[in-house]
Amino acid sequence: MAASSSLFSSSMHVKVFAPKVPTFSEDFIVCHRKISCMEPGYSTSKCCPNSRFLSIKMSSKEDQMKKTCQRNGIPCRALKIEQTTSFSPGLKFHLDDVIEAQQFDRDTLNAIFEVARDMENIEKNSHGSQLLKGYLMATLFYEPSTRTRLSFESAMKRLGGEVLTTENAREFSSAAKGETLEDTIRTVEGYSDIIVMRHFESGAARRAATTAGIPVINAGDGPGQHPTQALLDVYTIEREIGKLDGIKIGLVGDLANGRTVRSLAYLLAKYKNVKFYFVAPEVVKMKDDIKDYLTSKEVKWEESADLMEVASECDVVYQTRIQKERFGERVNLYEAAKGKYIVNQDVLKVMQSHAVVMHPLPRLDEITVDVDADPRAAYFRQAKNGLYIRMALLKLLLVGW
Amino acid sequence: MAASSSLFSSSMHVKVFAPKVPTFSEDFIVCHRKISCMEPGYSTSKCCPNSRFLSIKMSSKEDQMKKTCQRNGIPCRALKIEQTTSFSPGLKFHLDDVIEAQQFDRDTLNAIFEVARDMENIEKNSHGSQLLKGYLMATLFYEPSTRTRLSFESAMKRLGGEVLTTENAREFSSAAKGETLEDTIRTVEGYSDIIVMRHFESGAARRAATTAGIPVINAGDGPGQHPTQALLDVYTIEREIGKLDGIKIGLVGDLANGRTVRSLAYLLAKYKNVKFYFVAPEVVKMKDDIKDYLTSKEVKWEESADLMEVASECDVVYQTRIQKERFGERVNLYEAAKGKYIVNQDVLKVMQSHAVVMHPLPRLDEITVDVDADPRAAYFRQAKNGLYIRMALLKLLLVGW
Amino acid sequence: MAASSSLFSSSMHVKVFAPKVPTFSEDFIVCHRKISCMEPGYSTSKCCPNSRFLSIKMSSKEDQMKKTCQRNGIPCRALKIEQTTSFSPGLKFHLDDVIEAQQFDRDTLNAIFEVARDMENIEKNSHGSQLLKGYLMATLFYEPSTRTRLSFESAMKRLGGEVLTTENAREFSSAAKGETLEDTIRTVEGYSDIIVMRHFESGAARRAATTAGIPVINAGDGPGQHPTQALLDVYTIEREIGKLDGIKIGLVGDLANGRTVRSLAYLLAKYKNVKFYFVAPEVVKMKDDIKDYLTSKEVKWEESADLMEVASECDVVYQTRIQKERFGERVNLYEAAKGKYIVNQDVLKVMQSHAVVMHPLPRLDEITVDVDADPRAAYFRQAKNGLYIRMALLKLLLVGW
Repeated sequence: MAASSSLFSSSMHVKVFAPKVPTFSEDFIVCHRKISCMEPGYSTSKCCPNSRFLSIKMSSKEDQMKKTCQRNGIPCRALKIEQTTSFSPGLKFHLDDVIEAQQFDRDTLNAIFEVARDMENIEKNSHGSQLLKGYLMATLFYEPSTRTRLSFESAMKRLGGEVLTTENAREFSSAAKGETLEDTIRTVEGYSDIIVMRHFESGAARRAATTAGIPVINAGDGPGQHPTQALLDVYTIEREIGKLDGIKIGLVGDLANGRTVRSLAYLLAKYKNVKFYFVAPEVVKMKDDIKDYLTSKEVKWEESADLMEVASECDVVYQTRIQKERFGERVNLYEAAKGKYIVNQDVLKVMQSHAVVMHPLPRLDEITVDVDADPRAAYFRQAKNGLYIRMALLKLLLVGW
Repeated sequence: MAASSSLFSSSMHVKVFAPKVPTFSEDFIVCHRKISCMEPGYSTSKCCPNSRFLSIKMSSKEDQMKKTCQRNGIPCRALKIEQTTSFSPGLKFHLDDVIEAQQFDRDTLNAIFEVARDMENIEKNSHGSQLLKGYLMATLFYEPSTRTRLSFESAMKRLGGEVLTTENAREFSSAAKGETLEDTIRTVEGYSDIIVMRHFESGAARRAATTAGIPVINAGDGPGQHPTQALLDVYTIEREIGKLDGIKIGLVGDLANGRTVRSLAYLLAKYKNVKFYFVAPEVVKMKDDIKDYLTSKEVKWEESADLMEVASECDVVYQTRIQKERFGERVNLYEAAKGKYIVNQDVLKVMQSHAVVMHPLPRLDEITVDVDADPRAAYFRQAKNGLYIRMALLKLLLVGW
Repeated sequence: MAASSSLFSSSMHVKVFAPKVPTFSEDFIVCHRKISCMEPGYSTSKCCPNSRFLSIKMSSKEDQMKKTCQRNGIPCRALKIEQTTSFSPGLKFHLDDVIEAQQFDRDTLNAIFEVARDMENIEKNSHGSQLLKGYLMATLFYEPSTRTRLSFESAMKRLGGEVLTTENAREFSSAAKGETLEDTIRTVEGYSDIIVMRHFESGAARRAATTAGIPVINAGDGPGQHPTQALLDVYTIEREIGKLDGIKIGLVGDLANGRTVRSLAYLLAKYKNVKFYFVAPEVVKMKDDIKDYLTSKEVKWEESADLMEVASECDVVYQTRIQKERFGERVNLYEAAKGKYIVNQDVLKVMQSHAVVMHPLPRLDEITVDVDADPRAAYFRQAKNGLYIRMALLKLLLVGW
């Protein structure tokens, strides 16, 4: 099931399971049969994380008549319960797909971050984890994004999983012949266990997730969402500052176009006593929808033109790149915006010793290179955290908690 | 050795082996030495499926003087006999390369389908087969075909093998500098155990197979052949209908240009009492060579303009895409052809309950989306069968029966 | 640490280690902390080959305060000494990066070739080595080179390692948005254990190695260096002729532009009594810098216009392709140069029986196809040796001697 389309509601499926009761739910056994059997309007979660090995796949009409979903005679929900780890005693929730930052509530974020910490230990200490051995991830990228793709593929391989890569699906695939995204997904889901998709159209990830019988992770869909970036940003703040409640964060640079800072605003609004400072050139100011949202959630924010003052106040200075491609012909506007707020040694000097500089990368001139050597320059650690967050999500979607 | 170039003869090598007789054939030991030692006109089969580990590779002139092909002192044909499984007692045949649909006779098809069924079980039930562990497949694609490439790569990885990928060999490789296909193959065969090649020129796969000392699979060579598509089509018919003898199949759409339907005609002609119906717009009618071939084989066929009547008669309605790229400037001819025969709910209504709709994909409008939910819509299962057929062929070519 | 920039000095780090003395060196523990802690001008070797699993990675400011570099309580230099094999008793040297042919001295070359021979045995006899299991190589190719890329990826996979691929980093990556190479390297090093980089700019490999905390292999940087090609050439001569001291080699074709023959000249100058013959069309003659270098090293060389005479004298005829792309508009000059020196049956007739023909490939018409069948045609074996050399280097850089 795709995540909820509601912007503000959590679409995590929180379910209370009585442990070790091997009931054989009618709700459950229809999973993985959406393509041929689903009624319009009917939806069911991708309820069996370990589904490739637990459920019987329907490959002929005869098989579809059978209604059992078991392996070695053991109904698979029972099996799933037995496999669960102790995240929150008596309470389990299920992650189907990762579509948008807003789908996660605070508890879910905490749980994901806990798994990400485990992943840090695995990556540093084990000589090749085999946690996802036998699983196959398809990276279906309709627009190139080497950084994000490598991060996901590294995550999968660090856990012993395998990868099918498509670096430029838009040009190379059947899409060029006019195939719908839905048909492509139905084919690719037959070849893999999870799909990581980057697309140029907003909403594409949700369409893919609605179609697929296997989990889908949105690796960015046009101007829409890039939820794993948002997760790694919040994770980085917690790792670097040690807390999320009560932090003060300065968002600097292109606040109008950057989906990163917008997603970050939505996510941090879930925490207590967070204060935002917006430091942006006039042409790329933070838009009213975010300001209104924060106000409605009673989150404090203010706009400022004084980077030095904000830097001295904040726990996090989150710098972003002014995106030239958004300015078109207006080159002089771009040049003016680009040079206005630079994080350099002067900014470092006023920052507190526990504070950090973050950036989603790639970086041009908006952070000077001499900042890199300062321990408070967190942006490369932030990029590395993307690996841990993606390892955690792959683990959660494929084998569950 | 490449498959036979004769259109109608089977080029499968059927050999009767006395079991466990470790004779050391002169014919055998020259295998893998074609490059430097082959006389013009001389050919030998790639006789040792497990060759990477059984034969001594010749990497210097000195080594070439040695004429033993053994490992741990055991001549390798003997080893091969010991490894064979019970396909047909007392009778073994050997698969060197997969070049064209016509190379397979009925017994071989049955044997491949039997292995494909095993592969279905492996893919569904085992957590990562290691059958091809240590083997390396090179996907050498001179034109992009994401669907076919992912299917082969998934097949290899589902069996524990590894993959070297070239998504666009035409543009990226030494071919751009004028290197011959033969030289490229001689280099790539040094880096891998099997080559899966897609090429834009008809006959390229045969040239590659003739050159290579390792198995070659044709993943489509221009307007020529796409034998694994033909195999998966026949396999799907058998899986869905339960038989091949006596089936009635309606080929619909572009019958002039589609290599798929042409290959299918050749393969199904090997079965008894098959009846073909050709339903095509005038501009893309089935060509005379196929009709003549079927007549010569005493296979019944008829042309029809009435899709509804054909659909009510057939076990299989095989729809195809009208390929716009074949019409060039003649856009109105394309539009007319495209809209003429659509598989929709009306067609489903007249089809028998055991019958199926097939399509090689990608699909545009020639099957309406509301058909997908009907259990008789077999096209996504057909795509999935491509995985099993390719798993079977990789297994057969690399480790034998 | 990057290799020395001095053209003639060896930049191998030769260190004498007292075996099994687990001293805990201050020098050592700062490794992998270059990004955030390095003083300008300060440099330290990537001293721990097995670093991903031995050193604690610094992912937050707190961690950076810790100064221990150990695993399971064992300081890692001690661990490294225990793991070393007996290359040269009492004497170890350390390989950080592979940047240019000149970085290797004669002892190092011999040691690498010894490992390459081991790799030949592994590739031929073992069913999938697991020597590099758990290691991840990133192939960062800023210009396409399918042959080189596949060779490296095959090498990694033959040793059980895994690969992250970027076939066209220039177009696809953040480089297109203006990110510096240094920033890209800092991101990619977080996702992998070793970087193999092809770049269009001379010197790029050194810049990458200076930045990276993990090993970097130069897979060609523009008109600069292609050290693994040079290594495989020298390895091939030794394998085919049985010696390097005292060999006579004829370099034929484009001697002005080919980085291959230039690197070869530098490397072979390290051996005794080597004699070079330069056979080149006037427009692409060997340049004076190489001639002067050879003279300064007391290496004999002569220029000749008579290929037949040179071929009859030499142990190795090293043919190269005249590179059309270097001639621009001067097509007739290209055509004249191209046809001037061809290796064909006539040349074979005058060559000695122990001599070989080599070529870096791709080959156009400068060696006729009928030469391929002669046992002295070594060029495809030479390409295969590239696999063994790259396996050896990956082994040496990742797990040490």
